[in-house]
Amino acid sequence: MFISPEAMLEHWQGHRRLTRRVIDAFPEDKLFTFSIGGMRTFGQLALELLSIGVPMMKGIATDTWDARVEADAMPKAEILRRWDEGTEVLNSLWRQIPVERFGQERTAFGQYPGKVHDLILYGIDNEIHHRGQGYVYLRALGVDPPHFYERA
Amino acid sequence: MFISPEAMLEHWQGHRRLTRRVIDAFPEDKLFTFSIGGMRTFGQLALELLSIGVPMMKGIATDTWDARVEADAMPKAEILRRWDEGTEVLNSLWRQIPVERFGQERTAFGQYPGKVHDLILYGIDNEIHHRGQGYVYLRALGVDPPHFYERA
Repeated sequence: MFISPEAMLEHWQGHRRLTRRVIDAFPEDKLFTFSIGGMRTFGQLALELLSIGVPMMKGIATDTWDARVEADAMPKAEILRRWDEGTEVLNSLWRQIPVERFGQERTAFGQYPGKVHDLILYGIDNEIHHRGQGYVYLRALGVDPPHFYERA
Repeated sequence: MFISPEAMLEHWQGHRRLTRRVIDAFPEDKLFTFSIGGMRTFGQLALELLSIGVPMMKGIATDTWDARVEADAMPKAEILRRWDEGTEVLNSLWRQIPVERFGQERTAFGQYPGKVHDLILYGIDNEIHHRGQGYVYLRALGVDPPHFYERA
């Protein structure tokens, strides 16, 4: 194998800790107002991440897919509260997944077919992608982002 | 297991195809001149990616670590030429790696200790991170970036 389920979960949770720090570093008054080149705000991107990560794992673990995407602006503290809540739920869902399922096919949110390991990697990669965009927003706002290599 | 070495290589090569398209979409005259918030140019970020991906895999496959980082601007065609050359080298190096090595410890470039699977994921994640920043640069320059989900 390339990596075990346990090591992959820890890798993802390391990313989630970094993403949390990037959300926390964002100025509250810019979260849903600032953008570059007509892109979405970082607040909207953060809401997208909330609507993919844990709901994806709930679908994979329980075959119940919840495709709701929150669209309304909310305070940073509420985003962080949902993020932290998701951290524990993610650990719990992950441990319910039989190991053979990672290589099986599923259709995420009734729309996106693929092997379970690819669906999960897509969610993690999407988090890294949008967080990287958040780094540019922070730099443009004069805020030093957290170090990319800090995952503890 | 979460994912096999073969599936992980294909996942990475999918990312590399997308990264190639983002480099190719970048206006030649902006590659080493445009930046946001004091960050590096996308050309410099692309050179960093060239200095991590394949050299990392060469180190893991052969225990020979080459820590050179190219710093001088070069034409986009030359970056793409090196990228394409790396694609084949990466496939060849990956297939030389005994499967048990992915769970062993190595010190990347004589400086970064970690399990081989984490070192490789770090390289891939770093590519996604900087490519995401390239998306913001492209949008700021009025260029539509390739779709994140296109990996073929």
